[in-house]
Amino acid sequence: MDMKNIIKRSGEQDEFDVDKLRKSLFRSGAGEDEIDSVVDYITEHLTDGMSTHELYKLAYAQLRKKSTKAAGRYRLKKAILDLGPTGYPFEQLVGELLNNKGYRTQVGIISQGKCVQHELDVVADKPGVRVMVECKFHNDIRRKSDVKVSLYIHSRFQDMKSAWEKETGSENIKYEGWIVTNTRFTEDALQYGNCSGLKLISWDYPAGESLRDMIDQVGYYPVTALQSLTKSEKLYLLENDIVLCKTLIRSIDVLRKFGKTEKQIEKIVNESLLITGER
Amino acid sequence: MDMKNIIKRSGEQDEFDVDKLRKSLFRSGAGEDEIDSVVDYITEHLTDGMSTHELYKLAYAQLRKKSTKAAGRYRLKKAILDLGPTGYPFEQLVGELLNNKGYRTQVGIISQGKCVQHELDVVADKPGVRVMVECKFHNDIRRKSDVKVSLYIHSRFQDMKSAWEKETGSENIKYEGWIVTNTRFTEDALQYGNCSGLKLISWDYPAGESLRDMIDQVGYYPVTALQSLTKSEKLYLLENDIVLCKTLIRSIDVLRKFGKTEKQIEKIVNESLLITGER
Repeated sequence: MDMKNIIKRSGEQDEFDVDKLRKSLFRSGAGEDEIDSVVDYITEHLTDGMSTHELYKLAYAQLRKKSTKAAGRYRLKKAILDLGPTGYPFEQLVGELLNNKGYRTQVGIISQGKCVQHELDVVADKPGVRVMVECKFHNDIRRKSDVKVSLYIHSRFQDMKSAWEKETGSENIKYEGWIVTNTRFTEDALQYGNCSGLKLISWDYPAGESLRDMIDQVGYYPVTALQSLTKSEKLYLLENDIVLCKTLIRSIDVLRKFGKTEKQIEKIVNESLLITGER
Repeated sequence: MDMKNIIKRSGEQDEFDVDKLRKSLFRSGAGEDEIDSVVDYITEHLTDGMSTHELYKLAYAQLRKKSTKAAGRYRLKKAILDLGPTGYPFEQLVGELLNNKGYRTQVGIISQGKCVQHELDVVADKPGVRVMVECKFHNDIRRKSDVKVSLYIHSRFQDMKSAWEKETGSENIKYEGWIVTNTRFTEDALQYGNCSGLKLISWDYPAGESLRDMIDQVGYYPVTALQSLTKSEKLYLLENDIVLCKTLIRSIDVLRKFGKTEKQIEKIVNESLLITGER
């Protein structure tokens, strides 16, 4: 890295000192990861002859952004719990995640299996593949989906598969059964699921493709992660099918209905953009 | 029927009058079925020259028997609920019913399926057949077993079947999955169960082979149906694996432990014999 000079308040020139910046950021309560990230950013954006004042202003603006984003993501687990008490907003979130992966999705439909009718949380289609997704939303983070869940979803999937395979044009379609939960599976639920060919996705399973990872990778954060909204405003959004921050950004008229000022709306949109990683 | 004479209190002879007996029994509060049954019994046991006094004594003794039996059977639903709060005594009852049908049974065992281990309520074997029985005991009579129960038991059965079919000597064995409940199944639970090949048995389903019928046909009444025992005595019996009246009759030493007198024990045994239909 080539050395760059900065202009001190006294008017003197000085070499940019990374350690001084680190110490300053550390004193402000930033964590190691955040400090690394801000230092990287500053090193990249530093221009020769920049004033100390400008440099620190830039650094702290970046830190605030990082913190909001970090805080938003940190709150994700809680934000998903706040999608309750019903499981429907969670189903919509899962539907959106699958749309993002190129599936065409239907959420909350009734469908006739070989033996009985089933309520299917998400049915996701893309050429050659149809996925039946069961969403297990729990209001209590400690509640695990047990082996009975894997067992009954497997039978439900088989019953639907039998019916789908009788449809015309189903010859080249591969059928998959998934279970997505906001909490965790018990050991034997995972064991049975994997053994019987179901795909199981929980808050932190499987590594790299967990629910948290899926959300993080595409920035599909729920509106319940926003600190600039009240609880009742969040509930209103959920009831009106605005589940994700990215959807809210496109639907700010609803915020005007809440009587929010343009300044407040800007703040909400800014927080949404930061959490979703779009800014 | 040849006419028989009875001796009235006055010493006069008279023809036996069925209608008079019916009226008398009716006044004592007996129901139509009980009256029919007593009249049949008397008609059969009446001897020429029997006194009116003897005839009525015999009739009322028979009525008391019938009533105890009827009352015991009437209380059956409640008596089965009283097997709770755990499901284990109910599993034992179901095991006994299957023993009676010629199966060799194991109750409450852990067994390895193809994918996972399962806790099996009853496994019943007879030459050429193995039955996996899941017992769904509910403490609330209004609680129904829903379609999820049929779905998960079907998967559990398939998982066990896959493992059993790999055992040596399993070639000529037919495997069956049953669900037995003390309450009822929902409509779609029955629909899925029947469609997928499970055998579903509830309190009153299927007609003629329901749980009530199975118990009634062989007189396997639980000790909780006895009025001559206290609640805590019944609990003690259940905890010591004495679930059926027929078992109690063979284990009266336990009643002596309760400090019951020989007269009380006789009463308990009599009630047991009457309910089970052995007297």
